[in-house]
Amino acid sequence: MPENVVQDRYPDEYSHCYGCGRLNERGMQLKSLWDGRECVAVFQPEPDRIGIPGFVYGGLIASLIDCHGVATAFAAAGEQERATGADVTPRFVTAALHVDFLRPTPMGVPLTVRGRVKEAKGRKMVVELSLFAEGQECARGEVVAVRIPQSMQIPS
Amino acid sequence: MPENVVQDRYPDEYSHCYGCGRLNERGMQLKSLWDGRECVAVFQPEPDRIGIPGFVYGGLIASLIDCHGVATAFAAAGEQERATGADVTPRFVTAALHVDFLRPTPMGVPLTVRGRVKEAKGRKMVVELSLFAEGQECARGEVVAVRIPQSMQIPS
Repeated sequence: MPENVVQDRYPDEYSHCYGCGRLNERGMQLKSLWDGRECVAVFQPEPDRIGIPGFVYGGLIASLIDCHGVATAFAAAGEQERATGADVTPRFVTAALHVDFLRPTPMGVPLTVRGRVKEAKGRKMVVELSLFAEGQECARGEVVAVRIPQSMQIPS
Repeated sequence: MPENVVQDRYPDEYSHCYGCGRLNERGMQLKSLWDGRECVAVFQPEPDRIGIPGFVYGGLIASLIDCHGVATAFAAAGEQERATGADVTPRFVTAALHVDFLRPTPMGVPLTVRGRVKEAKGRKMVVELSLFAEGQECARGEVVAVRIPQSMQIPS
């Protein structure tokens, strides 16, 4: 298990997400790697995750961008928070998600998602993302991630 | 099977989508009903489709809005095209998807998605959507749907 997988740092109670929770056995278990500047994930969809035959379905692409965007925000925020000695947020959640589908995303190959923080403001972070297949950018996204609100927090 | 399920009118070769294809046995098989003005779908997520425990994961909400938006565009376009005697487009695909998550979407209850065409221009349609749980609007979305490009078409 690589040491810098962002989702491995989510507390157990926040690790059940279908898209990226390490404790969701039936989920996709996306793993996002943070290098201090950029967050990268590689994921190959199951063969049934098609839209038009031969191409990945849009909902999966949106899911990857969503979970990876939240992970990018968490990683960047954690770095800031640890540096200032503040409490580290247990999780970010998505306030808004945007995806532009630039070209059809082929099935049968690994997809690479890259995310970077574009803006950090108060409780929120705006993350820009791109999804690539075979070296071509197939989708571009933006995630507005916010620190998890009290109403969604789980008493630990 | 209700007669006005939009996805039942997709040609077989375009009915394998994981989100809404009637021929994808492992998929979600979303069914969108068109009443001539509005498109409505009701869907209850599988128990593993959680984000934070107790709440539906964002990727599923994005998937419902995506597939239902494309279905709304197809239904509205089909009506126009049949009225003018033009060839009916076999399928719409998503060019852009936007979702605002207004409040956490609870698990364990049916979700209702409503879609309406906001704008129709050339090959594209802009669809506005809302997702409700227990009568509350939990997410709002917009889908830019386009007639399927030649590069994605399947020879019939």
